[in-house]
Amino acid sequence: MTPWQNPLLNDRDVEFLLYEVLDAPRLSELPYFAEHSRDTFDLYLQSCRRLAREVLFPAYKPMDEAPPVFERGAVKVHPALPELIRPLVELGTIGATRPAEVGGQQLPLLVATLANVYLMAGNLSVCSYLGLTAGAAHLLETFGDDALKATFMTRLYAGEWTGTMALTEPQAGSSLADVQTRATRTEAGHYLIRGAKTFISGGDHDLTENIVHLALARIDGAPPGIKGVSLFAVPKRRIQGGELVPNDVEVAGVIHKIGWRGLPSLSLSFGERGDCHGYLVGSPHQGVAYMFQMMNEARLMVGANAAATASVAYHEALGYALARPQGRPLGAKDPKAPQVPIVEHADVRRMLLRQKAIVEGSLSLVAATARYADLAAHAEGASERERAQRLLDLLTPIAKTFPAEKGFEANALALQVHGGYGYSSEYLPEAWLRDQKLNSIHEGTTGIQGLDLLGRKIVAGGGAALLALGDEIQQVVGRAQRAGVEPAWCERLAASVSLLGELTAELAGAGLRGEVELMLRHSADYLELASVIVVAWQWLAMAAAAREGLTRGASPAGFYEGKLCAAQYWFATELPRVEALAALCRSGDDAYARMRPEWF
Amino acid sequence: MTPWQNPLLNDRDVEFLLYEVLDAPRLSELPYFAEHSRDTFDLYLQSCRRLAREVLFPAYKPMDEAPPVFERGAVKVHPALPELIRPLVELGTIGATRPAEVGGQQLPLLVATLANVYLMAGNLSVCSYLGLTAGAAHLLETFGDDALKATFMTRLYAGEWTGTMALTEPQAGSSLADVQTRATRTEAGHYLIRGAKTFISGGDHDLTENIVHLALARIDGAPPGIKGVSLFAVPKRRIQGGELVPNDVEVAGVIHKIGWRGLPSLSLSFGERGDCHGYLVGSPHQGVAYMFQMMNEARLMVGANAAATASVAYHEALGYALARPQGRPLGAKDPKAPQVPIVEHADVRRMLLRQKAIVEGSLSLVAATARYADLAAHAEGASERERAQRLLDLLTPIAKTFPAEKGFEANALALQVHGGYGYSSEYLPEAWLRDQKLNSIHEGTTGIQGLDLLGRKIVAGGGAALLALGDEIQQVVGRAQRAGVEPAWCERLAASVSLLGELTAELAGAGLRGEVELMLRHSADYLELASVIVVAWQWLAMAAAAREGLTRGASPAGFYEGKLCAAQYWFATELPRVEALAALCRSGDDAYARMRPEWF
Repeated sequence: MTPWQNPLLNDRDVEFLLYEVLDAPRLSELPYFAEHSRDTFDLYLQSCRRLAREVLFPAYKPMDEAPPVFERGAVKVHPALPELIRPLVELGTIGATRPAEVGGQQLPLLVATLANVYLMAGNLSVCSYLGLTAGAAHLLETFGDDALKATFMTRLYAGEWTGTMALTEPQAGSSLADVQTRATRTEAGHYLIRGAKTFISGGDHDLTENIVHLALARIDGAPPGIKGVSLFAVPKRRIQGGELVPNDVEVAGVIHKIGWRGLPSLSLSFGERGDCHGYLVGSPHQGVAYMFQMMNEARLMVGANAAATASVAYHEALGYALARPQGRPLGAKDPKAPQVPIVEHADVRRMLLRQKAIVEGSLSLVAATARYADLAAHAEGASERERAQRLLDLLTPIAKTFPAEKGFEANALALQVHGGYGYSSEYLPEAWLRDQKLNSIHEGTTGIQGLDLLGRKIVAGGGAALLALGDEIQQVVGRAQRAGVEPAWCERLAASVSLLGELTAELAGAGLRGEVELMLRHSADYLELASVIVVAWQWLAMAAAAREGLTRGASPAGFYEGKLCAAQYWFATELPRVEALAALCRSGDDAYARMRPEWF
Repeated sequence: MTPWQNPLLNDRDVEFLLYEVLDAPRLSELPYFAEHSRDTFDLYLQSCRRLAREVLFPAYKPMDEAPPVFERGAVKVHPALPELIRPLVELGTIGATRPAEVGGQQLPLLVATLANVYLMAGNLSVCSYLGLTAGAAHLLETFGDDALKATFMTRLYAGEWTGTMALTEPQAGSSLADVQTRATRTEAGHYLIRGAKTFISGGDHDLTENIVHLALARIDGAPPGIKGVSLFAVPKRRIQGGELVPNDVEVAGVIHKIGWRGLPSLSLSFGERGDCHGYLVGSPHQGVAYMFQMMNEARLMVGANAAATASVAYHEALGYALARPQGRPLGAKDPKAPQVPIVEHADVRRMLLRQKAIVEGSLSLVAATARYADLAAHAEGASERERAQRLLDLLTPIAKTFPAEKGFEANALALQVHGGYGYSSEYLPEAWLRDQKLNSIHEGTTGIQGLDLLGRKIVAGGGAALLALGDEIQQVVGRAQRAGVEPAWCERLAASVSLLGELTAELAGAGLRGEVELMLRHSADYLELASVIVVAWQWLAMAAAAREGLTRGASPAGFYEGKLCAAQYWFATELPRVEALAALCRSGDDAYARMRPEWF
C-alpha cells in the first residue's frame, strides 16, 4: 500500500472549472490564444501538478523549519531552493501568460492561475520568488523603455535574475503617499537613490547573481503625496564596464515572519554610501499608478495563494478524517463495536463541508476573475474588453479578500479536525494556518480592500461594473434554471443581487451628498456582503454544471453530488446572512464611528 | 516617559464587573464567604494583578521562545519557572476557593477567576501548572479517602507537588469509552497500572520532587465502555519506606505544541516494568463521572484563559493603534499634514471595538458563570443551589466555547491591527494567536460542547435550565429598562430569547420522537446561536450598569460611554444574526448530514 499523499488540489475540480463551468477552450478563439487548445492547457497543468506534488511539496516542511539566515550582510536561503526553482523556470512559469515576443507562452491567465494554485499549494515560498519576478518583468514590459527591457526585463523573464516590489518603508506601509526614499537625477541620466525599504520579500538571497527592485521613490523637488512618487528599477548589482558591480543596496535586517518561511522578508537600505543607481521607469511622478498594475496582479495572486493554502489543508484534514478512528455514531450502544473514522461524525463533516465550500468557492472565484483578466486584455472589440476590465476591477478586492479571510477560517478548521494532533508542529495544518494569515495583510489589508471596493470600484463608471456583474449573475441563474437546479437557490441569489443593488444606490447617494464617512463606514461589512453573494454566484454556476453533468451521466456521479451538497451548504448557511449584513450597512450604525480612542 | 506597558486587563472593567454588574460583595452574606468583603477581594486581586504584570508577563516571551526540552528521559522546563511559580503558591492561588480546613481561602470563584485572568493573560503556561494541581487536589478532596487526602491532596494544595489530568490515550482522545490503560488489583490494596497516555500537560518537569497523575484506567474484568473506567492517583514517585521511590512512570515523548510553550505536553508510559502503583479514587467504575468535576472546572478555566488571551492581545493592539501613525483621515487633502494614529481610521476602530466586544463579553460571561458556581456550592437553601447548578451546567459549554472561538477571531484581529509587523515574531500577537487555538480543542472540542449543550444540558430536568436562564435574562432586561437603556435592545434580546425557546422546543420534540440525529444535526449552529444571545445578555447587563453609572455621575464617564458603544455594536452587528441561525437550525438543512465521505 502506498502511503497517502496529499493531492494539494482535486484534479477533477480543476477539470470541472475549466471545461464544465468556464469553458476555457473558448478563449482559444481569440487571436492571442489561437495556438492553444484543451490539449496544451492540460499539458501545462499536468506538468505543474506533477512538479508541485513530486518536487515542491516534499520540500515544504524542511523549508518551513529552516528559514533563510542573515550572515555577514548576506541572506542565505534554504539549500534545496535552486533545485526547486530550476524546473519552474524551465517550464516557463514566469512568462506563461506573456506574449511570445518576450519569450512567453501566451497562455490564458485562467489556466496559468489554476496551474499556479497547484504550485502554491505545494510550496508557496518557492512560487513567490518567481511570482514577484514575473510582476517586476511585466511592469518593465508595460512601462519601461527599450534599454530597461533589454537590461532587466529579458533577464527577469528568463529567470536569470529575480525581481521584487519595493514599496513599503518603515513609516509608509499602507500609506504610499508617505514614501520618503529620494531620487536625485545625475547628468549621466540615472538617478541616485537613497532611502530605507522594509518588508521586501525576496529582497536578498543567494539564488541568482542579481536582483532587480522595482522601487518607489521621490525625485528631488517632486510634489508631496502620491503625485510625487516615481518608479525606479534599482538592481542589487549594476552593469558597469560590462561587469556586475555592487550597487550600494544593503540588507539592514531580516524580519522573522511566522509563515512563508522559505522566502526572506527584509529591510533594505539604498544608497548609504551615495552610490545606488536607479533607472526611472516611464515618466516621473507616475510611480503609484504604474505600480497598481503589479499590485492588481499581485492581489489576484494573493487570492489564488489563499485558495491554495486553504486547499492543501482541506485535503490534509479530509485524509485525516477518513483514516482516524474515534468514537461511535450517535445512539450506538455497543462499546465493543469498533470506533468509526471521524468523517462519520456530523460535526466533522460540517467542518469538512465548510472547508470545501470555502476552498472550491474561492478557486472558482479566482478562476472566473482570471478569465475576465484574459478578456480584458485580449477580447476582440474595445467594448468587450472594457466590460471585462470593469468586472476584473470590481472582483479583484473580493477575489483577494474572500479567500484570505475565509481561507483563514478554513485553515483553522483543518487544524481543528486534527484535534490535539493539529496543535502540534509534527502535523502540517498549523504551518498552513500561519502561512494563510499573511494574505489578509499584504498587497492591501482587508480594510483597504473594503475601501477600494466601495469607494472606488463600485462607483467607477457610474456603477457600470455592478450592472455588468448583475448581468453575469443573471446568465448563471438562467443556466441553473435550465439545468434544473433548485429554483429556491436561483430566486435567493437574484433577490440578494437586487438587495445589493439597492443598498449600493443608497450608499452612493450618501457619497454624492458629500457624506463620504457615512458611505464608507461599513465598507468592511459591504465587502463581506458582496463576497457572500459573489461566492453564491460561483456556487450556482458549479451547481448548474454539476446538474448538467448528472443529467448527461458523466462520471463520477459522486463528484457532482458533492458539488451539490456544498452549493446547498452555501445557500442554506451563508447566503441567508445577507439580510442582516445589508440591514447593518443600511442603518449606518455608528458604534465604531463614534467610539473615541480614550473610551476603549 | 515610562515605556508603555500592556495592562493585560482593564482594571476598571474588573471593578465594574464585580461591583457594578454582579454585586460580588453580596456573596459575603453567605456563610461560606462570611470572612470576605470588598476589601479582601480587592487585596487578592491587587496581589494577583501586580504579580501578573511585574513577574509573569515579562517572562512570557522568553518562555515562548524556549519550550521545555526532553533529555535523558526527563523534561527540563524553563529555568525561570521556579521563581515564577513560588509567589503564586505563596499567595495561595492553588486553593483560593477551597475551604479553610484544607488550607484554602474560601474566596468566591467569581473573584478567584477574575484574579486568575490577570495571571493567565500575563503568562498562561505558568498558571497551568497550578490550575492542573488545583483540579487534581479538588478531585481528591471530593472523592478521595483520608489516606489519599493525607498523602496527595495536602501536598498538592500546598504546592509541594503538582497534579495532572491523565485521560487521553493515543486511541482515545474525545472518546473516553475507549480508554485501555489497565489496573490490576494487588493483595496489598493498590493497583498495578499499565498503559500509555498522551497529551498530558505538565506530565513531567523538574519543578517539584513529585507529580500526581489523576488517571483513568480500566480494572481487570471491568465492563466495556464508559461504565468500566475508574479513577486512580498515580504518582511519578511513590512513598515507600518513608522515601520517594520511582513509580515506573516514564516519559515516552514530548509533543511540539504550537503554543502554551512554557508547559510541556507529553506522552507517558505507565508500568512498562510492571511496577507502577495506582491508588483507586472513590468507587470502581465511576472514573468518568468523577473526572467530570475536574473537566467542568477546567472548561470554565478554558473560557477564562481564552478571555485572558484575547484580552492581552486586544490591549496590545489598542496600544499599537494609539501610537502608530499611518495615513490620513478620509477626505484629508493635504499630503503634507502629519499622519494620524491608526486608531483614527474607522476600520481600525471597527477591529478594536469588535475585540473589545468579544473580550469584555467573554469576561462578563465567565464571571457570571463563576458566580453561579459559587451559588451552586454555597447558596443557602437547596432549591437555590439546584437552580444555580442548572445555570452553571447550561452555561459551561457556552462559557468555554464562545471565548475560545470568538477569542481566536479577536486574536487574529489584534495581529491584523499590527499590519505587517503583526506577522512577525518580534511582536507578541502571533504568539497569543497560537496560544488561543488550543482552547477550541482541549477539555472537549467545540463540536463536543455543542452536543453537550443541546443533547444534555438543555434537555436535563425537562428544560428547567433554559427557563431559569430566561428568568435571569428577564431580570437584566428589567434592570436595563429602569436604567434607561435603549428600549430596542431590550426588546430584541427578549425576542431572541423567545426564538431560542421555540427552537429548543422543536428540537427537543424531534429528540422525543427518536429523531436524535435530526435534533443534534445543527448543534454547532445552536451553540453559536445560544452564545450570541447569552453574550447579548451580558452586554445588556453591562449597558444597564453603565447607564446607572452615567446617571449617578460616576467616573470616568468615558469608560461607560465605551461600554455603551460596545453594547451597541453587539446589538447592531451580532444579535441580528440570530434569525438566520435559528432558521438554519429549524430547517434541519441536510447538506452535511447527507454528504458522503467519497463525495468530498
